[in-house]
Amino acid sequence: MNGIRDRVAIVGMGCTKFGERWDAGASDLMVEAAYEAFEDAGIDPADVQAAWLGTVSSFRTGQPLAEALKLDYIPITRVENACATATDALRNACYAVAAGIYDIVLAMGVEKLKDSGFSGLAIPEAPGADVAPPTPPPSQFAMAATRYFHQYGIPYEEGKRTLAQIATKNHHNGSLNPKAHFQREVSEEQVVNAPMIAWPLGLFDCCGVSDGAAAAIITTPEIAAGLRKDYVLVKALGLAVGAFGILRNDWDFTHFPETARAGQAAYQEAGIASPREEIDLAMVHDCFTITELIIYEDLGFSGRGAGSRDVESGAFTLEGDLPVNTDGGLKCFGHPVGASGIRMVYEVYKQLQGKAGPRQLRKADLGLTHNLGGRPGSFTCSVAVFGRPD
Amino acid sequence: MNGIRDRVAIVGMGCTKFGERWDAGASDLMVEAAYEAFEDAGIDPADVQAAWLGTVSSFRTGQPLAEALKLDYIPITRVENACATATDALRNACYAVAAGIYDIVLAMGVEKLKDSGFSGLAIPEAPGADVAPPTPPPSQFAMAATRYFHQYGIPYEEGKRTLAQIATKNHHNGSLNPKAHFQREVSEEQVVNAPMIAWPLGLFDCCGVSDGAAAAIITTPEIAAGLRKDYVLVKALGLAVGAFGILRNDWDFTHFPETARAGQAAYQEAGIASPREEIDLAMVHDCFTITELIIYEDLGFSGRGAGSRDVESGAFTLEGDLPVNTDGGLKCFGHPVGASGIRMVYEVYKQLQGKAGPRQLRKADLGLTHNLGGRPGSFTCSVAVFGRPD
Repeated sequence: MNGIRDRVAIVGMGCTKFGERWDAGASDLMVEAAYEAFEDAGIDPADVQAAWLGTVSSFRTGQPLAEALKLDYIPITRVENACATATDALRNACYAVAAGIYDIVLAMGVEKLKDSGFSGLAIPEAPGADVAPPTPPPSQFAMAATRYFHQYGIPYEEGKRTLAQIATKNHHNGSLNPKAHFQREVSEEQVVNAPMIAWPLGLFDCCGVSDGAAAAIITTPEIAAGLRKDYVLVKALGLAVGAFGILRNDWDFTHFPETARAGQAAYQEAGIASPREEIDLAMVHDCFTITELIIYEDLGFSGRGAGSRDVESGAFTLEGDLPVNTDGGLKCFGHPVGASGIRMVYEVYKQLQGKAGPRQLRKADLGLTHNLGGRPGSFTCSVAVFGRPD
Repeated sequence: MNGIRDRVAIVGMGCTKFGERWDAGASDLMVEAAYEAFEDAGIDPADVQAAWLGTVSSFRTGQPLAEALKLDYIPITRVENACATATDALRNACYAVAAGIYDIVLAMGVEKLKDSGFSGLAIPEAPGADVAPPTPPPSQFAMAATRYFHQYGIPYEEGKRTLAQIATKNHHNGSLNPKAHFQREVSEEQVVNAPMIAWPLGLFDCCGVSDGAAAAIITTPEIAAGLRKDYVLVKALGLAVGAFGILRNDWDFTHFPETARAGQAAYQEAGIASPREEIDLAMVHDCFTITELIIYEDLGFSGRGAGSRDVESGAFTLEGDLPVNTDGGLKCFGHPVGASGIRMVYEVYKQLQGKAGPRQLRKADLGLTHNLGGRPGSFTCSVAVFGRPD
């Protein structure tokens, strides 16, 4: 087996303004993201030889992407894979290019939630599926929070403050990002005292419900180098799916094994030995503040139970040694499910190019994205790594 | 660009009995198909490094496949792409192996329709999709039939008889297949006089509604050769998506450009110059008898308007020069949407191995599968070609 490392490049990207996009349908959002990506890459729509469309609730097939972009008769695959949908669409696009099947392809993630009746509620199970109805996500992750506090002997007030620091960090980053849905700072006070959603998670511990789309043009490093100097290389594409749900005896609600497994796979593929030292920035799946805290530990950024201490020290802020969710995260972008993964890649791409504006990090050579979807105990988790060409 | 030709092999396959599977849920069907494939390939479930799950209405993510097969923490992508869902899942699996990312992967197609509330009705559009509600499939394809009859000056009685000959052929083939849903012969008389569904299509011009699953183990030709002599090589994987719908002025309802385009792409990739002469058997998307008639012409098996004559001559029967739907087709298997594509590959695989029992063809070196989904004018079409190793 050969990993994906350095075999595929991102040569252009686009990302819509996320938010309550009453002005745009899902097709409009795809056009907006795609044309920014085409212009950024310096290619024409006609150069796209195949496409992958990631979306959960907006479309059922790849055809609407063909219609929106007038990509007539090319192959388009639709991928739906919970909250990892967009990253998995990108992953399959990368494999097709790495196989030499296509030279230039498009990976698109899109979701229109605000006028869909979906509205951030739990995904209804498909007809015919022999599974139990889901618990709403805030309740699922609230259980992780209470168990985490218990496991490490953290009093409620102290735990709430740690979570609030994660929220204020992400809202600060989002305040610097014109594409974010929410662009205002929040104080720790506001977060701690916000209305309760699912104890102990309050309003500002939860991500919002938004519309958005993001797109990436994938090609070979050779073609990329002919189009621009500052293309970005794909270093790793890890994906791990849990099989056993919370029926598993060793599942303890204080870590997500799927994140750890996808992370290990990605680190091996990218040749990363010390994630905390080597990775310069990470966009992780902060659907809830507790999720981000646990992800720090599952990705090896913090030791077990040591995430709070690292939050306290400011390690994950724009000025820290490993900035996390520099674009504002799901906290500020909301979570248009099929779009989030490529939205994260967009921020890593811009940071690696030195084009992240007021959020630009001093050092951004190696960036990571992380998505986590499904239910605790049977998550679908993607971890991808991107780097600058030497 | 390098095509997929001869770079990837199928080393094991499984296919459930299709039909009204009140005895099995979608997960049970996946287990049944997968374990036949594992046994056929001589591998263990633990040898599977990654998987692709094709399903339309049974599941939303890849996770249920992990749960059903206890494939813990491996990557699983879910693909949904209308009636080409299963073949597109297999296509993406093949690209990942061709890229050298994995050695052995599983492609699974499954659908549970009989107790799902789906029941063969039109797919309801997803919330948030900005498209018009669909016309039911029988009405869509009925328009193709009336237009085809008009275009070529075919009187109703004559047209009905041609369509009936396609139905009787497929039902004859299905009567020889213990895995088919419907295993009875029908006479031309019965087909012509059956209750009308959407004029001029009667009951026996339409495929049924069934449950089923089919699975393929994909690997490199080198690994395949170590496991068995009679593995099957992937020769081509064409996919074409129409962008413009029936709004396009040149769309005439008597041919499906997506089939022609996907076919051309596949023929080029497989190095096929004369499809009628070179291809030994084809499983095509006979959702309706008129669809199979038009596909003959779009795939270059018959000249334009000459399909009826070739049907009359028996060209596409088991004894003909290019047998089509040797397993009974959608006519006898029904169309559990996410399963059909890999069910077709299963028949090609068995025919190429000489293991098709009473349906075995004298010559079966090169076989084709074809799926067509979506709506006339904006179809998603896959054409794949498989061959025996030299």
